[in-house]
Amino acid sequence: MSTERVAYVNGEILPESQASVSINDRGFLYGDAVFDTTRTFNGEIFRLEQHLDRFYESLRYMRIDSPVGKAEMKNITLNVLKKNLEILPDGDDYWVSQRVSRGVRGLPGIMKPTIVVECFPLPLEERAEYYRDGIKMIASSIRRTAPESLSPRAKMHNYINLIQAELEIQSQDSKALALLLDVNGNLCEGHGANIFLVKQGVIYTPREQFVLAGISRQVTIELATNLGYEIKETDLDIFDAYTSDEIFVTSTSFCICPVSSINGLQVKSQNIPGDVTLELQSAYSKLVKMDFVKQYLDKL
Amino acid sequence: MSTERVAYVNGEILPESQASVSINDRGFLYGDAVFDTTRTFNGEIFRLEQHLDRFYESLRYMRIDSPVGKAEMKNITLNVLKKNLEILPDGDDYWVSQRVSRGVRGLPGIMKPTIVVECFPLPLEERAEYYRDGIKMIASSIRRTAPESLSPRAKMHNYINLIQAELEIQSQDSKALALLLDVNGNLCEGHGANIFLVKQGVIYTPREQFVLAGISRQVTIELATNLGYEIKETDLDIFDAYTSDEIFVTSTSFCICPVSSINGLQVKSQNIPGDVTLELQSAYSKLVKMDFVKQYLDKL
Amino acid sequence: MSTERVAYVNGEILPESQASVSINDRGFLYGDAVFDTTRTFNGEIFRLEQHLDRFYESLRYMRIDSPVGKAEMKNITLNVLKKNLEILPDGDDYWVSQRVSRGVRGLPGIMKPTIVVECFPLPLEERAEYYRDGIKMIASSIRRTAPESLSPRAKMHNYINLIQAELEIQSQDSKALALLLDVNGNLCEGHGANIFLVKQGVIYTPREQFVLAGISRQVTIELATNLGYEIKETDLDIFDAYTSDEIFVTSTSFCICPVSSINGLQVKSQNIPGDVTLELQSAYSKLVKMDFVKQYLDKL
Amino acid sequence: MSTERVAYVNGEILPESQASVSINDRGFLYGDAVFDTTRTFNGEIFRLEQHLDRFYESLRYMRIDSPVGKAEMKNITLNVLKKNLEILPDGDDYWVSQRVSRGVRGLPGIMKPTIVVECFPLPLEERAEYYRDGIKMIASSIRRTAPESLSPRAKMHNYINLIQAELEIQSQDSKALALLLDVNGNLCEGHGANIFLVKQGVIYTPREQFVLAGISRQVTIELATNLGYEIKETDLDIFDAYTSDEIFVTSTSFCICPVSSINGLQVKSQNIPGDVTLELQSAYSKLVKMDFVKQYLDKL
Amino acid sequence: MSTERVAYVNGEILPESQASVSINDRGFLYGDAVFDTTRTFNGEIFRLEQHLDRFYESLRYMRIDSPVGKAEMKNITLNVLKKNLEILPDGDDYWVSQRVSRGVRGLPGIMKPTIVVECFPLPLEERAEYYRDGIKMIASSIRRTAPESLSPRAKMHNYINLIQAELEIQSQDSKALALLLDVNGNLCEGHGANIFLVKQGVIYTPREQFVLAGISRQVTIELATNLGYEIKETDLDIFDAYTSDEIFVTSTSFCICPVSSINGLQVKSQNIPGDVTLELQSAYSKLVKMDFVKQYLDKL
Amino acid sequence: MSTERVAYVNGEILPESQASVSINDRGFLYGDAVFDTTRTFNGEIFRLEQHLDRFYESLRYMRIDSPVGKAEMKNITLNVLKKNLEILPDGDDYWVSQRVSRGVRGLPGIMKPTIVVECFPLPLEERAEYYRDGIKMIASSIRRTAPESLSPRAKMHNYINLIQAELEIQSQDSKALALLLDVNGNLCEGHGANIFLVKQGVIYTPREQFVLAGISRQVTIELATNLGYEIKETDLDIFDAYTSDEIFVTSTSFCICPVSSINGLQVKSQNIPGDVTLELQSAYSKLVKMDFVKQYLDKL
Repeated sequence: MSTERVAYVNGEILPESQASVSINDRGFLYGDAVFDTTRTFNGEIFRLEQHLDRFYESLRYMRIDSPVGKAEMKNITLNVLKKNLEILPDGDDYWVSQRVSRGVRGLPGIMKPTIVVECFPLPLEERAEYYRDGIKMIASSIRRTAPESLSPRAKMHNYINLIQAELEIQSQDSKALALLLDVNGNLCEGHGANIFLVKQGVIYTPREQFVLAGISRQVTIELATNLGYEIKETDLDIFDAYTSDEIFVTSTSFCICPVSSINGLQVKSQNIPGDVTLELQSAYSKLVKMDFVKQYLDKL
Repeated sequence: MSTERVAYVNGEILPESQASVSINDRGFLYGDAVFDTTRTFNGEIFRLEQHLDRFYESLRYMRIDSPVGKAEMKNITLNVLKKNLEILPDGDDYWVSQRVSRGVRGLPGIMKPTIVVECFPLPLEERAEYYRDGIKMIASSIRRTAPESLSPRAKMHNYINLIQAELEIQSQDSKALALLLDVNGNLCEGHGANIFLVKQGVIYTPREQFVLAGISRQVTIELATNLGYEIKETDLDIFDAYTSDEIFVTSTSFCICPVSSINGLQVKSQNIPGDVTLELQSAYSKLVKMDFVKQYLDKL
Repeated sequence: MSTERVAYVNGEILPESQASVSINDRGFLYGDAVFDTTRTFNGEIFRLEQHLDRFYESLRYMRIDSPVGKAEMKNITLNVLKKNLEILPDGDDYWVSQRVSRGVRGLPGIMKPTIVVECFPLPLEERAEYYRDGIKMIASSIRRTAPESLSPRAKMHNYINLIQAELEIQSQDSKALALLLDVNGNLCEGHGANIFLVKQGVIYTPREQFVLAGISRQVTIELATNLGYEIKETDLDIFDAYTSDEIFVTSTSFCICPVSSINGLQVKSQNIPGDVTLELQSAYSKLVKMDFVKQYLDKL
Repeated sequence: MSTERVAYVNGEILPESQASVSINDRGFLYGDAVFDTTRTFNGEIFRLEQHLDRFYESLRYMRIDSPVGKAEMKNITLNVLKKNLEILPDGDDYWVSQRVSRGVRGLPGIMKPTIVVECFPLPLEERAEYYRDGIKMIASSIRRTAPESLSPRAKMHNYINLIQAELEIQSQDSKALALLLDVNGNLCEGHGANIFLVKQGVIYTPREQFVLAGISRQVTIELATNLGYEIKETDLDIFDAYTSDEIFVTSTSFCICPVSSINGLQVKSQNIPGDVTLELQSAYSKLVKMDFVKQYLDKL
Repeated sequence: MSTERVAYVNGEILPESQASVSINDRGFLYGDAVFDTTRTFNGEIFRLEQHLDRFYESLRYMRIDSPVGKAEMKNITLNVLKKNLEILPDGDDYWVSQRVSRGVRGLPGIMKPTIVVECFPLPLEERAEYYRDGIKMIASSIRRTAPESLSPRAKMHNYINLIQAELEIQSQDSKALALLLDVNGNLCEGHGANIFLVKQGVIYTPREQFVLAGISRQVTIELATNLGYEIKETDLDIFDAYTSDEIFVTSTSFCICPVSSINGLQVKSQNIPGDVTLELQSAYSKLVKMDFVKQYLDKL
Repeated sequence: MSTERVAYVNGEILPESQASVSINDRGFLYGDAVFDTTRTFNGEIFRLEQHLDRFYESLRYMRIDSPVGKAEMKNITLNVLKKNLEILPDGDDYWVSQRVSRGVRGLPGIMKPTIVVECFPLPLEERAEYYRDGIKMIASSIRRTAPESLSPRAKMHNYINLIQAELEIQSQDSKALALLLDVNGNLCEGHGANIFLVKQGVIYTPREQFVLAGISRQVTIELATNLGYEIKETDLDIFDAYTSDEIFVTSTSFCICPVSSINGLQVKSQNIPGDVTLELQSAYSKLVKMDFVKQYLDKL
């Protein structure tokens, strides 16, 4: 049995080392492509339909007309995942992504979108200590791109705004995570992560317009609501962050991960994770039928 | 003799159909890559050193440490061009580009940048009528990404802001060119093209900070200065554009191309190109030792 | 019987061809005037009181002290309408407007506001095809004037901001309607029309602060609420528009009219009008006791 | 001999009391019109050509195609002026204005612009004390409309932004003049007046982009340059105003008028006008061959 | 018995004339200090705990680690108040404030925060006429500092932004109160006072993010809610203010005080205070067990 | 002879330990005060007149009418300095500052400004390594207060905006210096330090409007001009900083100090200080007749 992951590229399933796109692919030349990513829990894919729905919204925003429809994309995804699960080490899990670029320039005829579906192992070990110690989050001097220039709500292959923030912060502390403010100075998001504040029992998160509203953000809102918490989606700023009891981030891979300090200021809560964060993590684990925190901590 | 172009990818020269990057290359995943492009005139490459200087500034902005230095990059470029010139049809010319991405995720060891050098034929035919009739330029509702989010002065593989403007405008008129305003509402740039206004004998172009200051923009400023024109780099807006005598754009491939209307309003000058534009085109042709306008018009 | 419409000007009822204001009227010199407009359905005037309330708010914002009070203004309006109904062709209807300018400069004594009340036939024929094919809506590069400069919520005789947007868009496509974004890049309004999005059964419209909140916008919100729809007044942007199922505009004359495309991108709904738009149109017709859609379509 | 002024309206010369525009004229309905104004000195019109050049630029910005060309407009202007000079009292002078609106709605055929040329006596008496005591200038809380919404550089019949500032300030002090800041908080302009600061012998005035750059502003710059002053057109703010030695405004009618206080803070210069202002006033008087300051002061 | 007030400074209770801070105290050098202020009603301190909670949030925002904890601070406060009540004239009341600066520069060892607790008599006489005639409120041209520069929500010793607005307005009318707009042009706050609008029975006040949300603002919201009013915390602008029925401000000392005019425009309500304001004042008086309006009016 | 420094406070010269201001001084309560600071070189005060000129401009901006005039302030300053020089250790130097607050609240009569003049030893040892290794400069997420809220050009006792940036950066790296961007994202200033970039032999520094234009900034511009360098005062951003050859800061105490990295990215120049910085430092030392770099380095 092969020990190499496989990927789907334009109709073929190939070993990852052979899975490539042309240097003339607009996804490479311009980042002119769209993607979405879900993850597995114990090999089970989570909320694939919801991710695909968002994926086709991103495609629509980009006016890319995918030759592969939603149902077929689902089948391809499940097929690629199945093949890759065979070589997944015990205790690990995958990111599973669909990607569609506008196509290859310079070929005869009408441009044909490039389709890629692939799996990538979660960086469990790299992030394990975040679950024990909390994330040090630092606001970047760079502002999240404004919606009047490019919507942060479509998942596209243009990440340099977020990467620049990351480079700025991680050159100070390689383990810290960058927080971007929006052009009004409000809390926005990190590289692929949504932020939540807990203050006096109420849970706050930035309004959807300036951030990519993650599926895990939505899951967290639902879980919190079910647990009886009041959730407010509203403009938040550094003052809110500094005076919060707890802070956590959510993302497809993180699920829910506690933040220990913001701009070097320890959050109020003595224990990491704080009580509310812990309760939400437990509810999340229950929903995904796996203790995702333990999965991370086991890698320490 | 092969009729296929070749490209350099990470140390190898390959037929373009085999020149590719991994689906895990950050240049593809995030547009996390840098490039620069010059063109040939009659097969002679133009201002390669100046383009390479800018290329290494873009790399520095992106904190990508290219394993290939400037001198070697020049050699590779000349070598790739030489091979491709053998199959260049008479009367045609190339774009010649260097590209460096941050590398491929998930490989063992430290990430190693991906290096690509390639040639691509100029779209002479597609644009020929612009030189006869002038470009219809239309301001997009989308604003150019602000420098506080991402500098427009580094040439990076993140073009969706410009592509969205293009999609918006070209869904109205497939031949029109999009003009982006900056976040202050000033004239900024098109997809890869700088804009110039001529009014009462004075030539104006937007300040460098909000635009990618093209080499051809610089060439044009030098030529105009030598011809005795006053050139002002300053904030310009739609009022300036509407009340100009002539408008033209510059880019590596366009060199200098006249604009006939802005937002559907004909420029004042009766003839296309206007007198100043024509004079600058002639000077440009002389500098590059080739009548670039004729090259375009011959394709009609 | 005369076939000419009449208008009220400063106490007199005159044939429209003799109804004029001085060249020294500040309404002409500076647009220093206020107005409001309602329409008739089958000759019946609609929500006159509500329009007059708004009219006197606009006057207050402008610090114009109308010598004619609300009750008298209502009487004048009904009187002017009555006279004009006599010559209204079957199947047609009127806009009915009150206008008050600050007065005439250069006359002795304290400046006395100029009062005008007039009827104008609805452009049913001109707009009929919008009801069959939907409106092509295109975002202008011009931003709606910010409230810190001039409130968009008072109806005043200063329309050049909207007219410039219209000129920009209609020089591309004379049938298209201009959509203005506000200074934050949010969806705002067209020339006299409010915009609504329908997405997954929820109805959205921009917050009132940046738009002139039309009476028909209010009527639509009431009708939708009564029909059981959830309505959200919130910040919306181009991403929302591109991913909506249906889009429609409302105005005094349009009532509710479907939008077929936004920036050249077809709305998702296959049929024009979409299901929700159609349901609201029917409710609107019922409320005004006339099939206003049929009235438009009959003009085709 | 008649004692009533006359005006030109669409080909006719009429007594002003009969000079009017239709209530359906877009100049009245929307302020959809353009104008320019020069003044006479001792009955001699000043820089008419320069004003007409600017007038046709405003028309172009508004895409109004005047049926009356520049040469004819000049003749009409001189003719209207000549007739009105006959009744001009000794020691007085006129504003002389051209106005073109987009035309009258609802008439058959293509819309035909409305042309008005008129004279209006300068408010010499009303403003006389400004020349003796200086102007009290107060910054309004209202910001000048941003160029991305409407260019302040075209002279149009949309003055409510400026009128609102005036109403705000004059409800505090009916003799004070409103100063508007632009959307960046920089000094901008008053209702029809440009502002200049003098500091340590250097003269400053706001950049042209955010203000209507008056002809008298231009004249002042020329005079100051000839007198050997350094003039800087640059971004200025309240700190600059508070720390200036002298402040003055320029306009067609004001020519040059000293400011005595800004936001209630007396300018540094003990005498009103300050030395530089006085020198410029004298040069202005010499240029226009009349002591315009004396003309104002004689009305006290 | 002494007739001099006393204050607590770093552990000592001193006569106010001897209560001072070093010229090297950062509270003096940089305004690098935090405070909070409550008031007494008939000598009874009001909502001290709530004020202290906010005080410690401000300290946290400023990263000042007070050596005196909340409980001890309460004791000190009550003690200082008790001593000062002995000399409080009948009918008067106090402001009672806690202040903590970051400490004194240049001393050996780690910097030690400076602690001050003091009482100051309310300016009842100075403000009495506001309760009879209403406040004349005028919008300043200065914008409230943006949250991305400094949070308006922490109570700090940096008041120049508000003081500049006050100086600007009061140089026009020494009795007027300055209203600041935020950087978006929305109604924000005065020097230490929150603003409320009443329109058609609904009560509006600006969102908390851009203003220091006073305790009395919170009290007013609670009282209004209990009285059955709908309260909306939302973006408000000058149009809202001009078209309101009643306007009032709240602050620790004002409690609730009516506004009679905004930018010189009389509020709609004929009587001062308006009906809703009066009802809220009565409820406030009941809550604090003292007729605070009478207390002010008695000083006339 | 006493070993304690003395300070001038309101007419008296006192040992520093007794030099204080009332807790009711507005300088303490609100930071409602103005200052300026020069330094000595070998005990010689530098450019005192220029600093005093700026001091009185700051007072004017704040509308504080100092009872002590410029000449007397100079005498007091020289007197205080003279007394303090007696106890200045060899090799050390002083900051010498004038401070004027608006006065003490609550005293009878008109408020009388508080005057302080004091000396403070330069932190030579603390900063010595900056001269050997260069400064690590990091851009804060906090934006410099906008001029429309508070002018950065007056030196006032309101420093929390700068202190917050410093706290944010120094909680990551206690030796790093914070760089603030202005509200447009341009390079602005650090806490009391101006920034300069050197690129291809040209020297750049931000425009004066958004920064406190230091005297040492001015000295540096003069020295550079005399040495034949081109100096540009213009908008600069992070792209400029990342692609510079050398970066340095200037301030009263720093004179000229090299920056080694910006946001963790090493400046291009291999040696610290770079060639241009070194040349300017030498010229500065010559001007002040003391090797200020050696003075710092001797403290290592």
